[in-house]
Amino acid sequence: MSGDVRVASRLIRDIEDDIPEAVSTIKDLYAYTGNAHVVGITGSPGAGKSTLTDGLIAAFRKIGKTVGVLAVDPTSPFTGGAILGDRVRMQRHVLDQGVFVRSMATRGALGGLSKAVGDSINVLDSMGKDIIIIETVGAGQQEVDIMNHAHTIILVLVPGMGDAVQTIKAGIMEIADIFVINKADRSGADRLFQEINIMLDMALVQTIGWRPPVNKIGNINDEKNFVLEIGKLVEKIIEHRNFMADSGLLDERKRRRAVCELRGALEACILEHIYRDLINDGSLEQMIEKLINRDSDPHTIGEQIVIKYLK
Amino acid sequence: MSGDVRVASRLIRDIEDDIPEAVSTIKDLYAYTGNAHVVGITGSPGAGKSTLTDGLIAAFRKIGKTVGVLAVDPTSPFTGGAILGDRVRMQRHVLDQGVFVRSMATRGALGGLSKAVGDSINVLDSMGKDIIIIETVGAGQQEVDIMNHAHTIILVLVPGMGDAVQTIKAGIMEIADIFVINKADRSGADRLFQEINIMLDMALVQTIGWRPPVNKIGNINDEKNFVLEIGKLVEKIIEHRNFMADSGLLDERKRRRAVCELRGALEACILEHIYRDLINDGSLEQMIEKLINRDSDPHTIGEQIVIKYLK
Repeated sequence: MSGDVRVASRLIRDIEDDIPEAVSTIKDLYAYTGNAHVVGITGSPGAGKSTLTDGLIAAFRKIGKTVGVLAVDPTSPFTGGAILGDRVRMQRHVLDQGVFVRSMATRGALGGLSKAVGDSINVLDSMGKDIIIIETVGAGQQEVDIMNHAHTIILVLVPGMGDAVQTIKAGIMEIADIFVINKADRSGADRLFQEINIMLDMALVQTIGWRPPVNKIGNINDEKNFVLEIGKLVEKIIEHRNFMADSGLLDERKRRRAVCELRGALEACILEHIYRDLINDGSLEQMIEKLINRDSDPHTIGEQIVIKYLK
Repeated sequence: MSGDVRVASRLIRDIEDDIPEAVSTIKDLYAYTGNAHVVGITGSPGAGKSTLTDGLIAAFRKIGKTVGVLAVDPTSPFTGGAILGDRVRMQRHVLDQGVFVRSMATRGALGGLSKAVGDSINVLDSMGKDIIIIETVGAGQQEVDIMNHAHTIILVLVPGMGDAVQTIKAGIMEIADIFVINKADRSGADRLFQEINIMLDMALVQTIGWRPPVNKIGNINDEKNFVLEIGKLVEKIIEHRNFMADSGLLDERKRRRAVCELRGALEACILEHIYRDLINDGSLEQMIEKLINRDSDPHTIGEQIVIKYLK
């Protein structure tokens, strides 16, 4: 809570590694959370999310906001280096006390990646960061789960990554509050802009009163223009936050986040308890053998476990 | 088990929709499963997985094998149509009794998409299909979970989809048994071929005795060549299957599948039981309120639920 970067870094690493000792600290911190505005950024690999995040850090710092960033990577010995390499740019903020950047890579812990991200958001929140940016690669169900922690969700798209309708992956279109067309100096940007707008107009479900804006961000090397466009994006984020607060929808997002946190913690606690016991008395191994030999089936075993463990 | 397509279709739909009545049928079928060879196909959107699957269906039929296909879609009102549109080509097999194709789109059921896919594989398996192809969009953790049901995993890549190292997503490289470079007539195919081989050579973990081959598949419109290349891919799949059987590794894959099925069923049973109770007595709502007001924290509530429900 004093903002010690090394303590926070260690705590987030312990969360990633599912170290039991981290739990009591996370519990204690919880009472001091709920103040930050959480911005989620998602999109395909290569969409330029890190560059965008870097631009947002600079822009938020300029208006006096402190910023925490969690860049969430799926784990891979192959891609780890490459994706982290992308984040080198962000290191220019390393001497700024108002900025804290961490990459997370979680290895299939119980309760899932979403739980680890939620706990880590709370670490940054209790440090007093005004804005917390969660950046995730991809847009599958897992990323949707992670985005449930965010108050404002940004979907980043780029022109020319195959057919747009294919690229805009399932489940994300519906939850995006702001669309960004990145690398908008490339050919195909106007077409993508139109496609997104048509899709938004066709959408059956729509947040009442908020029509997601579509912001273009051009080449980062045209720095003056880039800064201008990032500034407009920051305005949209603030506009969205104010709209949410005024309309009462922010409470719904906070509720969604609470549901998500509860679910993650509940599943981790319950399943850890049961798996530990099943492994210790050797019955997990017996069950797997039964399945391989077709002496039982997964549902019957699931029901037997309910009878054995639940009151 | 008599191969009735309408019965099988309805059962898979019931699994997708989490209809409780489907469970007893799935239980009964389990004893008759474990015979099919399950081939998993994954890769980025737009990588041409459906075209590849279509080619594999034709090639396997030519050597007298019956084929079942599950094309797994994340759910979205936006992309659903587009992705299904891709599969129109496969409909040419619709009159062939030896082929059964189903698209699946699962809506965040307990136990996850992987559980629904596992149950549906068992439906196709009990129908007597020799080869079951599971096609998934994307390559996140969820897709890795789905691929745990497969005996042979194919990762499909295409040249020119941004930086290759970025595109080859996390967690999948390690589990791929066969690489396919699709649309290999495009520029960049040779470079991608070299990159994959270099990455395979650098890999720290490697299945002993099996070095994943990298197969190129060119333009589908050059039909003669396409059929030839698909034929070579089928040879590699059979080669992999034989290698697995001879080396005993097939038993390990069957074990991995059993673990995956057990985990899915266990989590679905346990969590369904607990959530139903928490919702019925209104305590879930109270817990969410407590979290929003910071009167408690997720971990403490998780522990309280363990005490309340577990013996």
